[in-house]
Amino acid sequence: MTAAAAVAQVARAAKDAQPRLARLHREAKDAVLLAMAEALVDRADEIVAANARDLEAADAAGIAAGLRDRLALDVERVGSIAQQLRDAAALPDPVGEVMRGSVLSNGLELRQVRVPMGVIGMVYESRPNVTVDAAGLALKSGNAVVLRGGSAALHSNSALIAVLRSVLAAHDLPEDLIAGIDEHGREGVDALMRARGLVDVLIPRGGAGLIRRVVENSLVPVIETGTGTTHVLVDADADLDQAEAIVVNSKTQRVGVCNALETLLVHRDIAERALPRLAAPLAAAGVRLHADDAARAILAAAGTGAEVVPATEEDWDLEYLALELAVKVVEDLDEALEHIRAHSSGHTESILTRDLRSQQRFLSEVDSAVVMANASTRFSDGGEFGFGAEIGISTQKLHARGPMGLTELTSAKWLVVGQGQVRP
Amino acid sequence: MTAAAAVAQVARAAKDAQPRLARLHREAKDAVLLAMAEALVDRADEIVAANARDLEAADAAGIAAGLRDRLALDVERVGSIAQQLRDAAALPDPVGEVMRGSVLSNGLELRQVRVPMGVIGMVYESRPNVTVDAAGLALKSGNAVVLRGGSAALHSNSALIAVLRSVLAAHDLPEDLIAGIDEHGREGVDALMRARGLVDVLIPRGGAGLIRRVVENSLVPVIETGTGTTHVLVDADADLDQAEAIVVNSKTQRVGVCNALETLLVHRDIAERALPRLAAPLAAAGVRLHADDAARAILAAAGTGAEVVPATEEDWDLEYLALELAVKVVEDLDEALEHIRAHSSGHTESILTRDLRSQQRFLSEVDSAVVMANASTRFSDGGEFGFGAEIGISTQKLHARGPMGLTELTSAKWLVVGQGQVRP
Repeated sequence: MTAAAAVAQVARAAKDAQPRLARLHREAKDAVLLAMAEALVDRADEIVAANARDLEAADAAGIAAGLRDRLALDVERVGSIAQQLRDAAALPDPVGEVMRGSVLSNGLELRQVRVPMGVIGMVYESRPNVTVDAAGLALKSGNAVVLRGGSAALHSNSALIAVLRSVLAAHDLPEDLIAGIDEHGREGVDALMRARGLVDVLIPRGGAGLIRRVVENSLVPVIETGTGTTHVLVDADADLDQAEAIVVNSKTQRVGVCNALETLLVHRDIAERALPRLAAPLAAAGVRLHADDAARAILAAAGTGAEVVPATEEDWDLEYLALELAVKVVEDLDEALEHIRAHSSGHTESILTRDLRSQQRFLSEVDSAVVMANASTRFSDGGEFGFGAEIGISTQKLHARGPMGLTELTSAKWLVVGQGQVRP
Repeated sequence: MTAAAAVAQVARAAKDAQPRLARLHREAKDAVLLAMAEALVDRADEIVAANARDLEAADAAGIAAGLRDRLALDVERVGSIAQQLRDAAALPDPVGEVMRGSVLSNGLELRQVRVPMGVIGMVYESRPNVTVDAAGLALKSGNAVVLRGGSAALHSNSALIAVLRSVLAAHDLPEDLIAGIDEHGREGVDALMRARGLVDVLIPRGGAGLIRRVVENSLVPVIETGTGTTHVLVDADADLDQAEAIVVNSKTQRVGVCNALETLLVHRDIAERALPRLAAPLAAAGVRLHADDAARAILAAAGTGAEVVPATEEDWDLEYLALELAVKVVEDLDEALEHIRAHSSGHTESILTRDLRSQQRFLSEVDSAVVMANASTRFSDGGEFGFGAEIGISTQKLHARGPMGLTELTSAKWLVVGQGQVRP
């Protein structure tokens, strides 16, 4: 069988199995999630052994240290992965929520209720924890899931999925509700992208290249996630103590994530005071500044000790995911808004100001998924928002925008109950 | 300039213009809509003259009578089109609605607010009223719109769009908020489908071929609308007086629409009584029945006078949009649910029953945008649901499902207001 046919068969089996899950109430779904957590802990040795095979292959291929760390599992990490499932069990069930409802003038009773999406396809890179997290959130929201987690994690993902499926079977549920297609490589992803009618939504998580490939080639509706060319604007009358704390936190609290600061804009009226204040702690944290001419002149005069290189046009569009920061002095709020409009990926931007009108304009006019005032961009996160779980951060406007929790894995249907009404 | 470059330029101009509209409050938007209605009435002669040129070309090409009627405008019809804009003005403004909100434990104030989608692309067939309706609903919801209404309506749409744009200009708004690309033909549609990053959502409205083409080829996110292989199930203990009224209404109240009945399922326990009752008024309305063997045997024995032909496998998947009806006798509710699962386009289905358990199972297990009990399928409509306007009926699960009103033309963004918070 070709990879395409095999993946289509997996997706069809998931679609056929999903109605069984859709009819389960929360209590039953939570019991399965808790049993899965227990099974993962019980069978941690088996999972770690499978992971060792992946690590061996990765080491032979000369994997980078950061990627190796994301891939590696030990008993403790398997325990954390199991905990994700217990956390999912503790979340409220979005399915069945009545979103809108009314009685029409002709007596028809109208309700819009939340229902599972159906079959969710996830394409991500080699982090085995995402396998379990995605499967758990899909199950909780009544969805079947087809997982494609990267060939480097093939054995780890197989072992994890085998444990989850054995728990489904033990609860008299179809194993096809959770399926992995890692063994079909890139052809598997291609087949998943063509499975329109079988897969209801495809969510890519990972690097910009992966996401672009899925967005440009999928016939299945996609939720675009991730890339964050995140801006902070230090406005003319920002509180500089707050600004220092927020800029440093936004840039350095965690570097390789989509809500980390990538471009700092500084109002010219405060630039001479602000830039040296900000540069010193950034330099101490090892951040290199890619600064425009105006910022470089100020930094050079102040002698902050920060490493400063001239910004190029490309810097304004980069998501460094590293200890690098683009810095630009802007004439006024209008120039800042214009720069963000031209260069933001629409993920997260924050203004630091004490001026009410500046804050209002920024919140209203910046067209990004998350727009902040006087807070670190690192708060742009489903966990921080109180969702309890996050399946990714959407940067598109259709269906979901910003951090996605369980609610964003659901669709809706309209129920109309009549007593014999016909249309005149 | 190529068609592709020209359409990209139009889309970019729309994108650049849209923030001006996004900042308008309801009062200002409604004033523009009312002025547009007035201008259409004032310039009706000009519009009718342009329409005459389209009709002349259509007659020369031998257009079918039904399509000609959809295309034709007179002063009265222009008046109805103007009324659509007044109706849009009367609707509440979805923009700015606070959808969710809370104060997090660290004091961050979190709000999810409705915002315009940005630029909406509409691809539809030659009905000039859709041009104005789509432009009006887009404007009301703060969106720019790029309209592609079919080459047969080229002159009519140009004249209508010219009137709308002149009103925008008179209100000191960018004309680029409403743009037509009819003159670029099929290449224009191709270019619109590739305008990812400029156009935020593409909504095709029209025949199955058009919709499939857009769904399969667009890089811009699409909302799939339309096709309805709509089912009614007459359950074992349906009220036959109600069933007769509802089945006839669902099939014949208006024939060429997506919420019209296409397949009638009849429970075997009631088939001998129900089928002759239903067939007589359907026959009187000119409906031809495509019946399975069991239904044909009953109808032949009863001698209803209805024209009955044997159903083929294809009949179960057809959207006739005509005085044709597929009829099947099912063993039980399970077989009905299974048939719907296999053959429905997920638009609208209705059960006719007095049995509570049957109704509950049908509402819960049928996975369609609108699921009804004891009501005509013709109620599956944004106007009937009280939306005041309808941009189409979505048959996909992402973003919007079922009738789409102004709300479905919006996205959301998260606003986060802090007092200096950083992430620990």
